[in-house]
Formats: sequence, structure tokens, C-alpha cells
Amino acid sequence: MFDDLLDANRKFQSSFQDTGLAGVAARGLAVLTCIDSRIDPLAMLGLHPGDAKIIRNAGARVTDDALRSLVLAVNLLGAKRVCVVHHTECAMAGSTDDDVRARIEAASGADATGWEFLATTDQRATLAADIARIRACPLLPDDLIVGGFVFDVHSGELIPVSVGGA
Amino acid sequence: MFDDLLDANRKFQSSFQDTGLAGVAARGLAVLTCIDSRIDPLAMLGLHPGDAKIIRNAGARVTDDALRSLVLAVNLLGAKRVCVVHHTECAMAGSTDDDVRARIEAASGADATGWEFLATTDQRATLAADIARIRACPLLPDDLIVGGFVFDVHSGELIPVSVGGA
Repeated sequence: MFDDLLDANRKFQSSFQDTGLAGVAARGLAVLTCIDSRIDPLAMLGLHPGDAKIIRNAGARVTDDALRSLVLAVNLLGAKRVCVVHHTECAMAGSTDDDVRARIEAASGADATGWEFLATTDQRATLAADIARIRACPLLPDDLIVGGFVFDVHSGELIPVSVGGA
Repeated sequence: MFDDLLDANRKFQSSFQDTGLAGVAARGLAVLTCIDSRIDPLAMLGLHPGDAKIIRNAGARVTDDALRSLVLAVNLLGAKRVCVVHHTECAMAGSTDDDVRARIEAASGADATGWEFLATTDQRATLAADIARIRACPLLPDDLIVGGFVFDVHSGELIPVSVGGA
């Protein structure tokens, strides 16, 4: 069921270069972005394996789990800057959680009552609020550099939308 | 503070090819892996942008937030197979949450009481339990194909550890 991926991995291994790096982010960067298949975070930012901790969830949201990962990345793994990267045409933007729940129930045939999917009808306000949540986290330093961006999935442009100071 | 990344993105844009794809995963795949900087999920699995939804958190754990993303990926975005990919030398493996909390408190100078970092001293048992959590999710189909793997960060090998049937 995974033979295609394991075959591809064997080819990857044959040209794999061990960087010798540990888990610390070589460029001091953490990136929180969406699960969207069109986003390749390393290519988008000119990074190489070893450079950055990459956190991804639906909508690039600063959930408890994303904060857990950020706290680890910053305190133990060398991240000094955080980029939160939303994107155009996000399935989590432009609809409400009620809409998303209805679509999930139609697709799954199961009851989605109680599930929160974190959809938003105002992507930029959500991004600003999420960045504020990072800034307010007591386990993250006051001088942490945090920026908010939107990636245009059709042009490849990374648009800064919230890159002011703390 | 982000000029280096924006400069790199401008170079990326100049060679960016719009796939024209929507958010649906072209290869029907979702990958849950760790935030570790040494993991490049697309290269590791021979994938291209557009092929797979990629979810990443510290330890590649099946948290509520990862399940939220998986439910969306499977029900709305075309994922039929899920790979959960842990890795060697993971900062979340081989230690306890008490250890991690103490290190976070030492690094941050703040109180980490109440934070759960989801460290594990038995990576393979944790992976198996997490896969069971995916299989038990009522919003995911019974015939969803789910596999567990460990990526060797020094050899590039993807090692299947839990790829049996449902």
C-alpha cells in the first residue's frame, strides 16, 4: 500500500547527503504554515533541510499544539524568528465552522458535533490574533521576532501582512 | 527582520510554476511528520508540490489538532492514505515530559507547570498508539490506509514500522 513511496525513498537515499546537523535549526527559523499541498516551505523561503523547524496544521493556526511545537522550537531547538504563513484559496478561510462541519458530515456520514475546525471568514484578522497569541505566550521570549504572511498559491509570492515589532 | 526570506522568495517567484492545482492532494496522500529541520517530506517520499497534505508538529503526534487536520484532509481534500513519520534523534523521543519541562523552564525562565510536551520514552509504542487513534476516529473512514514509519535522519531511509491492515 506504500510501495510507491518506499520505492521513491530508495531513490532519495541513494543521493541523500547527511548534513551532519543536529535538530537545532541552522538558520534559527520556525515556520508555521498550512497543510495545503501546494506549499513547499523550503522552496518558498529559499531554505535547505536543516535550516528551519516547520510546523503545519490546517489553516496555519496558533493552536495549543502549534504553541507546544513553537515553545520547543524556540527554547530547545534554536529558533529565534517565527513566520506564520497563511495562503490564498485556503479551505479554512472564507467559511464558517458550521459550513465546514456540514461538509464534513456530508462526506463522512458521521456526526461532527463538538468538533472545531477553526475556519475563519476574516483571514487577516485571524492571522493578527494568532500572532498576538504567540506574543502573549509566557514560555516564549519578549524579543522573539514574529511575522505574518500570506502565500499566493498561484504566483508564488509571499506577502508580508503583519511584520511589525513586538 | 525578514528581508533575507523575502529576497529568497522573489527568486523563487521568478521560477515558480503555477500547477493550476486546487487544494485537493493530487496523489491522495496525507503525511504527518515532525517539525524537525532535517526532514524534507516531499524529497523523502519523491513527491511534488500539489501531491500531499503535510501536517507537522513536535514528535509527529496524533494530537486533537493533527486529527482536525487529518479529518479535513481526508473528507474534503482527497487524502486516501496517511503516513505517520517519526524520526531518529527526535527531541521528543527518549525523554519524559518532566525532563522536557525542566529544560524548557531552564531555557525560558518561566513556569511550565501544566504544559504537556508529549515526550515519549518508547517511540514505537507511541507511534502504534497514535495510529490506533487515527483508526478509531469516527470522522475518518474504516478503509483509510494508515502506515507508521521512522525516518533515519542520517541515512535518509524511511523505515516501515506499522503498515499492517486495519
